[in-house]
Amino acid sequence: MSELRQNLVTRRWVIIASDRARRPNELAREEATPRPPVPDWDADCPFCVGNEELDLELMRAPQEGPWQVRIVRNLYPAVATEGAIERSFHGIYRHIDGVGYHELLIETPHHNPARGLDTPVGTQRVLHTFQTRGRQIAADPRMEHIIFFKNHGERAGTSLIHPHAQLIALPLVPYNIRSRVDEARRYFDNNGQCVVCATLAEELRDRARVVTQNRHFVAFVPFAAYTPFHMWIVPRRHCSSFLLATVEEVDALGALLHTLLLRLRRGLSDPDYNYVIRTAPLHEPGRDYVHWYLSIIPRLTYAAGFELGTGMFINPVLPEEAAEFLRSVKDKTED
Amino acid sequence: MSELRQNLVTRRWVIIASDRARRPNELAREEATPRPPVPDWDADCPFCVGNEELDLELMRAPQEGPWQVRIVRNLYPAVATEGAIERSFHGIYRHIDGVGYHELLIETPHHNPARGLDTPVGTQRVLHTFQTRGRQIAADPRMEHIIFFKNHGERAGTSLIHPHAQLIALPLVPYNIRSRVDEARRYFDNNGQCVVCATLAEELRDRARVVTQNRHFVAFVPFAAYTPFHMWIVPRRHCSSFLLATVEEVDALGALLHTLLLRLRRGLSDPDYNYVIRTAPLHEPGRDYVHWYLSIIPRLTYAAGFELGTGMFINPVLPEEAAEFLRSVKDKTED
Repeated sequence: MSELRQNLVTRRWVIIASDRARRPNELAREEATPRPPVPDWDADCPFCVGNEELDLELMRAPQEGPWQVRIVRNLYPAVATEGAIERSFHGIYRHIDGVGYHELLIETPHHNPARGLDTPVGTQRVLHTFQTRGRQIAADPRMEHIIFFKNHGERAGTSLIHPHAQLIALPLVPYNIRSRVDEARRYFDNNGQCVVCATLAEELRDRARVVTQNRHFVAFVPFAAYTPFHMWIVPRRHCSSFLLATVEEVDALGALLHTLLLRLRRGLSDPDYNYVIRTAPLHEPGRDYVHWYLSIIPRLTYAAGFELGTGMFINPVLPEEAAEFLRSVKDKTED
Repeated sequence: MSELRQNLVTRRWVIIASDRARRPNELAREEATPRPPVPDWDADCPFCVGNEELDLELMRAPQEGPWQVRIVRNLYPAVATEGAIERSFHGIYRHIDGVGYHELLIETPHHNPARGLDTPVGTQRVLHTFQTRGRQIAADPRMEHIIFFKNHGERAGTSLIHPHAQLIALPLVPYNIRSRVDEARRYFDNNGQCVVCATLAEELRDRARVVTQNRHFVAFVPFAAYTPFHMWIVPRRHCSSFLLATVEEVDALGALLHTLLLRLRRGLSDPDYNYVIRTAPLHEPGRDYVHWYLSIIPRLTYAAGFELGTGMFINPVLPEEAAEFLRSVKDKTED
């Protein structure tokens, strides 16, 4: 029999359809043939060395010598920095000019995504660069929220192979973010505790869904995971914003994220995935009750009419089995 | 410059990224080659005539002679009818047995989806059958909500070609449905009017986003459409539930839905799509302020990390241009 599980942090129910259960590894990317080999440099790739469009560049590191990481404006931005925030009303319709920031973080000079996973350093650099740029953007008083995310693969929303992540800053707080903050405050008001701290303590007691951990972070498959192999990486220290994480914490997050992305790649044949950093709105930090974390969402199944119609997910893999599988993937290749 | 638009019914903001604008027809299904020809009968298809699994069958019409439409239990149900509704609590976790109904509506004996669109009769039959079965399930006091939907194509969540729709009944009201009902009630309390009635009146005044209409329904692209060619088909008569629609209304909806699905097929090279009927929870009908409708969501773009992280959509096609394009598609083939 399948079961309905509630995610206490989001209050959403998820259908864990264990009757449809497929063994975790049956969900490995379906193509029987491996993806075509990817060169380490591509003459047509706008992110490769030698093809940089310098007028789009906002940051690079290091500043001297060959770059390791760059931030560039998106050539096709969803929002742009010019203009004022004006809400206009026409009849019942509300509209704001698309003011904000939409930037690409080019993670590495290497075109081939496998190269960026050689060591954790690249992943740590990505997160530090996100934080530095996020703090700059947070100084723009028009901005209300920043979303840091990565799309990997076609199903996850990108056709560009060269490793890149993105940030979008908006002049409003998205409805779903607002409703999570509201739920977290309600939980805090009722229980005197942060709901993510409570969840983390419970996961560490239970252990069944914990995948891996280090000094500062714990990675686990949520009790009501949305999709197969959905994972949260949660800081042990209660803190509302990624922008307030310490250098040591960002390094620890990078190390864990690197490990998990490598396990997805090795264990599930390089699946498409998204990750997103869930952090407090800029001007409503919710210090006591918002707890930032990073969420990895592999895209092995498609959201269908049911998901669009209800906002509920159907997950065909038991979270406990997904965690067990992810624990079992070797971190080192055995040569 | 792009713009942010708010959907008054859902309160969600959408980014209309007109700077990235592609002309509507550039979004036609990407494959240069047409889909492979589909036979009208397939020996391996579980829905084709001769392959019926009778022990899964719940309804068929007509009862005598060759069937036109059937409802069957899903062989891999997300929820199943046995069992009692018990909420159990383990620490902070909440769980309910997966009790409910998950059924497939086989729309036509013809395997090839093009055949089902020959005339509106098939589409009308689907909707009447949904309504009849929905009324039966609504009599089960354990059920709180029924979702009627269709997935067409791989990106929309199905690999089965034979035309079929689905219904899922649940022992709870999904969070997103509840929040829409709450927003509708708030609008009614403030304005003394149903928010969908207000939206419909505005769309009819403005006309820019109206695609087509008949005596009982209006089809339009919402002001803050989630995806390119997203459409709502809204009944003119205020009514909270699809289960309360009259025979004449269901016929009129079927006629309009048939026209629009055919225009998607002809104008955009048979794109993947979902449709879903948005209707009141069974025991909280919200008579004055909930207004049922059908939503069609073509799946020409992928939801990426930004959408997963915020619940907001980025739509690269102006709703007014999408509507203009959909108005321009011919309903008859010109031989």
